[in-house]
Amino acid sequence: MRIAVDAMGGDRGPEVVAQGVFDAACRSEAQFLLVGDPAILDPEVARVRSRVPNVEVVAARQIIGMTEQPVEAFKRKPDASVIVAAQLVRDGRADGLVTIANTGAAVAVSLLTLRRIKGIDRPAIATPLPSITGTVVLLDAGATPDCDSNNLFEFAIMGSTYAQSVVGVARPRVGLLSIGEEDTKGNALVKRANILFRDAEGAECPFDFIGNVEGRDIFRGSVDVVVCDGFVGNALLKTSEGVAEMMQRVIREELNRHIWMKPLLLPFKPAFQRLRKRMDYAERGGAPLLGVNGVCIIGHGRSDAFAVMNACRAAERAIKHNLVRVITERVCRAPAPPPPTL
Amino acid sequence: MRIAVDAMGGDRGPEVVAQGVFDAACRSEAQFLLVGDPAILDPEVARVRSRVPNVEVVAARQIIGMTEQPVEAFKRKPDASVIVAAQLVRDGRADGLVTIANTGAAVAVSLLTLRRIKGIDRPAIATPLPSITGTVVLLDAGATPDCDSNNLFEFAIMGSTYAQSVVGVARPRVGLLSIGEEDTKGNALVKRANILFRDAEGAECPFDFIGNVEGRDIFRGSVDVVVCDGFVGNALLKTSEGVAEMMQRVIREELNRHIWMKPLLLPFKPAFQRLRKRMDYAERGGAPLLGVNGVCIIGHGRSDAFAVMNACRAAERAIKHNLVRVITERVCRAPAPPPPTL
Repeated sequence: MRIAVDAMGGDRGPEVVAQGVFDAACRSEAQFLLVGDPAILDPEVARVRSRVPNVEVVAARQIIGMTEQPVEAFKRKPDASVIVAAQLVRDGRADGLVTIANTGAAVAVSLLTLRRIKGIDRPAIATPLPSITGTVVLLDAGATPDCDSNNLFEFAIMGSTYAQSVVGVARPRVGLLSIGEEDTKGNALVKRANILFRDAEGAECPFDFIGNVEGRDIFRGSVDVVVCDGFVGNALLKTSEGVAEMMQRVIREELNRHIWMKPLLLPFKPAFQRLRKRMDYAERGGAPLLGVNGVCIIGHGRSDAFAVMNACRAAERAIKHNLVRVITERVCRAPAPPPPTL
Repeated sequence: MRIAVDAMGGDRGPEVVAQGVFDAACRSEAQFLLVGDPAILDPEVARVRSRVPNVEVVAARQIIGMTEQPVEAFKRKPDASVIVAAQLVRDGRADGLVTIANTGAAVAVSLLTLRRIKGIDRPAIATPLPSITGTVVLLDAGATPDCDSNNLFEFAIMGSTYAQSVVGVARPRVGLLSIGEEDTKGNALVKRANILFRDAEGAECPFDFIGNVEGRDIFRGSVDVVVCDGFVGNALLKTSEGVAEMMQRVIREELNRHIWMKPLLLPFKPAFQRLRKRMDYAERGGAPLLGVNGVCIIGHGRSDAFAVMNACRAAERAIKHNLVRVITERVCRAPAPPPPTL
């Protein structure tokens, strides 16, 4: 198994990405291809060669920055690290790709290099999130900001396949994110999608639709896959991060209000560490981009080495479980969705 | 000042609403009109008459349930408590209305009874939220799930007026919720709205536009008014509740893992109480429905007496600050938004 990692993306620099890859490689049988500037990466790899023999550098001399226009950058920078990494997958020289680049660029590059799975109109980023009982998959988290109801239907097929074959949920329950549990609640898109999902219900439906769910259901453990458009999904994710961040800050403020309280908190240190671990995005690593012809894991721009390691492990899991092949088969078998009711 | 309160809405029954109104009335010069079933409300009011003389009952013998179709219910139940309460405002017998009914019903009834402010196409619910530094206003929180960019422009005018005249922010900073801070990021609606907002910038613009903001900026204190469509706003709010709920539960689980830890937590009880207070929706009370010809405060369906009391106080503040008149004037003065660039 070979995994290509775009070493030049993210906010913290290629050394941090390299460290994450080394940490993953130590624990893995896979071969890792670190794609980026050899002047930076070669010394890093040389430094750990004896301990981590399964990492090699593939040269790529350009970088797509975090704020560049994706499609433009794709044309202007053919030797960008994320493009070279995607080409390794396309050419069969790697089985999957990990990038913590600019999400828009990662999506555009994957689409243009790996192409879509036949039968899938638009791709989706499937983000695994912590719930009270385990993991819930939210998609789309930002690949397709403008969707129609057929896109949401495809997201449901792909998301449930991912939850089943990679996350390990035997029979994933799929919910459509709305602003009320009744089928008639929502915006125009979600109302149309609800009709489509209901029409498809039955023995042949490739997923188990439990109806509309609301934002607060996401974390309650009552649903395994939550489907929404990429604008809503991305906004929800960032808002969740904001709430968690604010709460952690408010807790710190309140608990540290009096200096004499500090020693009293010591016995709770492990509890707070477990709390942080349960809430931490880095624990979860990257999110797969579903709908393209190849395993592509997109990490958070703020990823540290630990998050990069987890993203590499997510890629390994997806490759081991033949995620792309399973989705392709599932999409082929799925009945075409009924024509939209306008 | 007279405030009409729909006593029959909410999940906890009219006695709880009545209790909230009594608590508000004790601290207020205003007269409260408790609208609903006299068989339930008269004994409640009689019980506290000596202590709270400024509450009276107005009879309404029907109830719009939490799951009824709003417009249908409006036609079928002319004597519903929320309709009677809105009519009191329309007829000048009350200066504002508080309801914790089904949000859809509250919006439909207010629109059909009070009518829209001239120049406003669609109404918006403006929800005050806690941020690290104070209060941030999010709108629309669910009145208008499907918006065009002009609607968002009107929301910005109304939201900034509310933040200024009621919340007390001298010069509110308005942000457009998107999935990236760059002007070109977002879905089709937000991209169009960004162009509209930028075109309107300048001395005559009735609000201070700071550009796109992301979900995690909402709580950071860097923006005072966040504008989005009603589907996104409602989904964000409920997701925030879900995250806060999950974190509280995880904290409880982690801190109570060992029975011997319990007594050690005692000194932190006030800190946890302050924490809960800072995060609690009930502290904030209801959210005003902006864009209709009358003060209308919509409370959370789960409101307890404390939340109802705060909703009543929100109505008082809005009435005292002439919210509806100020918005009406601001909308009249505002230059018509430039024609949409398609």
